Amino acid sequence: MHGYHRRENDRLQDQAGTLVDLLHSDTSYPPGSVVLEAGCGVGAQTVTLAQRSPDARFTSFDVSADSVAQAKRTTDAAGIANVQFQQADIFALPFAPESFDHVFICFVLEHLSRPAEALTILNQLLRPGGTMTVIEGDHGSTYFHPDSSAARMAIQCLVELQRLAGGNALIGRQLYPLMVEAGLEAIHVSPRMVYVDSSRPDLVDGFTRKTFTAMIEGVRESAIEAGIIDREAFDAGVRDLHRTAETDGVFCYTFFKGVGEKHKS
Amino acid sequence: MHGYHRRENDRLQDQAGTLVDLLHSDTSYPPGSVVLEAGCGVGAQTVTLAQRSPDARFTSFDVSADSVAQAKRTTDAAGIANVQFQQADIFALPFAPESFDHVFICFVLEHLSRPAEALTILNQLLRPGGTMTVIEGDHGSTYFHPDSSAARMAIQCLVELQRLAGGNALIGRQLYPLMVEAGLEAIHVSPRMVYVDSSRPDLVDGFTRKTFTAMIEGVRESAIEAGIIDREAFDAGVRDLHRTAETDGVFCYTFFKGVGEKHKS
Repeated sequence: MHGYHRRENDRLQDQAGTLVDLLHSDTSYPPGSVVLEAGCGVGAQTVTLAQRSPDARFTSFDVSADSVAQAKRTTDAAGIANVQFQQADIFALPFAPESFDHVFICFVLEHLSRPAEALTILNQLLRPGGTMTVIEGDHGSTYFHPDSSAARMAIQCLVELQRLAGGNALIGRQLYPLMVEAGLEAIHVSPRMVYVDSSRPDLVDGFTRKTFTAMIEGVRESAIEAGIIDREAFDAGVRDLHRTAETDGVFCYTFFKGVGEKHKS
Repeated sequence: MHGYHRRENDRLQDQAGTLVDLLHSDTSYPPGSVVLEAGCGVGAQTVTLAQRSPDARFTSFDVSADSVAQAKRTTDAAGIANVQFQQADIFALPFAPESFDHVFICFVLEHLSRPAEALTILNQLLRPGGTMTVIEGDHGSTYFHPDSSAARMAIQCLVELQRLAGGNALIGRQLYPLMVEAGLEAIHVSPRMVYVDSSRPDLVDGFTRKTFTAMIEGVRESAIEAGIIDREAFDAGVRDLHRTAETDGVFCYTFFKGVGEKHKS
């Protein structure tokens, strides 16, 4: 398990490194704003967020105390001083209503069985007129050339594992209705598509290989143990994913970013 | 058959109307350029092309004389005078090598069994340093909320019919390798994703309902006659596609646009 988590952490760090502009370049908060980052994990997004808004004050929490400790080490190492961390459960938060100007939540809803309820709780923490920013991927947005049913089956393992764990790996496409359900207003959702062909070698390596395919490879043992797939079929799928990183290959994946506003009461 | 074609034509016209900015806003040709439009069909793109480059001279051809006649009526009605039409087969073209500054081809390769060969032929018609612009959809890029296996099966009917007719409905993702194979240089492919939620009612109606779902509905009889699907399953799929156009629905589809250059010899 530790090996898996280590790999997962590296992947998230790599992911934030290569996707940072695509996902975050239009997020910055004014000086003095008080911002809540929900589900900061090991701080992959926290570093970017805090560096892009050096005069905003962040509170970042995660349900895992280990992750919070790691996030603090990561931001300390980066010389970041405008973030305070704490361990907390999104469904039992210790914060006062309307105590934040902005909320940011990235790659968290996919893990929750009640994502709309989580957003509703976070909305209550926003001051009137404050904003909420939500980012999620959608594994069902994945397609590639050469097409391969084996590769699609390997990806489906991750979707199925996420479902068995109570989450939803296809949640990106649902941001708009989820944010409506949470009571947000003036919602704008924009897709952030990662398109990779061999004219973009940084993305071939940084996204197709080291982010997406590495993520699928990371669930190999879990998928086989859960009886979702056999070893040979899984490995064939991973080989075909690597095949899409060759010179004539193409890989497509889409993240979704939604921004909504708390009702100005 | 005539009813089907009529509907298909209306759909293509609607499509060009609602997608025109997404697909064409970055295509315009300098005064005096000589441009070949390959596979103009009924002129859905011709009107846009010619209006955006009023001082370029277009030659637009299609394999169907009926389509060419319709395209001419359409451009005449729009008062367009910088296009000449002719009937021609892309694999037996009457034009001299290197006689065009630019080539434009949109929604054509999906119908061809030898798309790279077609691009190679068109590349020979370009002068050195001239550009080729290629636009295609990709039906495998379609996903939506609520997800529905019935809707995915109905879409798969169109993919299968296209395949049986010698074409490829998943060709959008392949533009980059196809253009490389045709000998083009400095190739840049960009995805053009249509993201539709109920905050964009024009797209809900103009794209989800009247373009994509109408296109699927248009192959109902062909798909049933070909034995790909039964009536009930197809109709369930179409109902679920319409369901994605409701208030909490989301619909995603991606076109691909590639621009490449003829080798400056």
